Amino acid sequence: MLIPLIALLAVAQTPPAVLATASAPPLPSDVMEGDWRPIPDDELLVMTLAGGRTVVIRLAARFAPEHVANVRTLARAGWWDNESVYRVQENWVAQWGDASEKKAMAPGVRQAPAAEFEIARFDAAQTLSRPDSYSARSGFTADGWPIASDGKAAWLTHCYGMVGVARDALPSTGSGSELFTPIGQSARRLDRNYTVVGRIIAGMQYLSALPRSEAAMGVYATAGERTGIVSVKLASDLPVAVRPRYEYRSTDNPRFAAYIKLREVAAPPTVPTGASVCDVPLAVRRAGGK
Amino acid sequence: MLIPLIALLAVAQTPPAVLATASAPPLPSDVMEGDWRPIPDDELLVMTLAGGRTVVIRLAARFAPEHVANVRTLARAGWWDNESVYRVQENWVAQWGDASEKKAMAPGVRQAPAAEFEIARFDAAQTLSRPDSYSARSGFTADGWPIASDGKAAWLTHCYGMVGVARDALPSTGSGSELFTPIGQSARRLDRNYTVVGRIIAGMQYLSALPRSEAAMGVYATAGERTGIVSVKLASDLPVAVRPRYEYRSTDNPRFAAYIKLREVAAPPTVPTGASVCDVPLAVRRAGGK
Repeated sequence: MLIPLIALLAVAQTPPAVLATASAPPLPSDVMEGDWRPIPDDELLVMTLAGGRTVVIRLAARFAPEHVANVRTLARAGWWDNESVYRVQENWVAQWGDASEKKAMAPGVRQAPAAEFEIARFDAAQTLSRPDSYSARSGFTADGWPIASDGKAAWLTHCYGMVGVARDALPSTGSGSELFTPIGQSARRLDRNYTVVGRIIAGMQYLSALPRSEAAMGVYATAGERTGIVSVKLASDLPVAVRPRYEYRSTDNPRFAAYIKLREVAAPPTVPTGASVCDVPLAVRRAGGK
Repeated sequence: MLIPLIALLAVAQTPPAVLATASAPPLPSDVMEGDWRPIPDDELLVMTLAGGRTVVIRLAARFAPEHVANVRTLARAGWWDNESVYRVQENWVAQWGDASEKKAMAPGVRQAPAAEFEIARFDAAQTLSRPDSYSARSGFTADGWPIASDGKAAWLTHCYGMVGVARDALPSTGSGSELFTPIGQSARRLDRNYTVVGRIIAGMQYLSALPRSEAAMGVYATAGERTGIVSVKLASDLPVAVRPRYEYRSTDNPRFAAYIKLREVAAPPTVPTGASVCDVPLAVRRAGGK
């Protein structure tokens, strides 16, 4: 079958380890068992859509603590339960929450948290070799987040699958009740203009493959087009027996450095093209093989 | 409703003119009537999917003449009729053609055309202000194609919605019978490694919103998952009465230069972020308001 063979390197959520067979020696870029580290249960948000489709979001707790606190409060209040994915705009974003804008906030939610567009410093464990169209430096934190900097400020990048906080006009930052994720080309123009609260680590296809709306801003014109949200819960609030556990691939090791290099400098006869912060897969896996 | 307001600038196929209201003076970036130029009928490929969903592809005839010649021969032979979209891989590509690989080529198709990964020169009418992760220079040809260069070679870029020719391992270039389009983050690692034959200018949502396959390489495991292709025809071979006509927004004018600048340097208080060759919308419209 004629297929872009390079695709094998592009599977976003498949550990690169699958590239090595049992009989082949490990590559310098292969993930090792010790590279996997657990994601805390209270940094996992489990969104169940109609039909039982599950989307799992890793929360960026240390980068956007105020907004993540709101997200946790909203989840614990069941605030999103029976709400919907109400906006799906082609090559732009899918967005969910309360389409009516009339629902009362859950108690304890800060309506106007401090802006968390930027983070304190560029703490990348790995830095890409070239500047890109949006930033002088970019790379990955040790714990697997994409990050960029202009040499002064730093910020998480709005790559495909990152979760941002919708808002009104600046200087509003949004409370965190309305969330969106880029479903096409990365939305890097939103960097430092919107707060990033997480990244979708499982079930992205249940958002990216939703029907697009051709109405203004991609907001579904009718309620019937929306996809219902059954529930949104923190994994830490689920019974242990059904609680999903995930691990991320850490980047502060020579295997990940070699993995980036493989993407930046392709093997001949393929022409090397480079790699951007939004096209280096950041692997996660279910813990314990569950 | 809380929405990323910047999205208004991100609607890929909506002319920027919609940003100006009747009462507002035109912006320097507003498209003028004379900026629209016709796309020749024999450079439009009309793919009708099951259910009457229509995908329109603009062919890159002057950049990949050998492969586009094959595509025209295949369309005129009805070669794709009753074939399918057989591969949809999350955050990677949708691909169509003959899933069996056993169908005889149409007469006149060159099985091994010359590689057309690169084009003669970087003939951009507008150049973006920064290098990106993949190229020293990038921009847009006068006739609305995204293009990049390393200072020597030049090439069309594998942005979202571009149409590439699937192939086996290098040095194969593929005949053009199996085609793919990126449906997530741009696939710039394919630049100069695959031949680009076109760009989807209408109906992209009928490919991008197809269900993803979790089988190897995103190839549907069963025939029932595929989306049928009713027909693929050149617009020039359709009866005049039903022939779609499209115009592209030319870029060799100060309006388009100002439009790029608007995206690179946002209006305060929004932080300027930059723009990449894959996130500047290249507008098209139906001619004659049809």
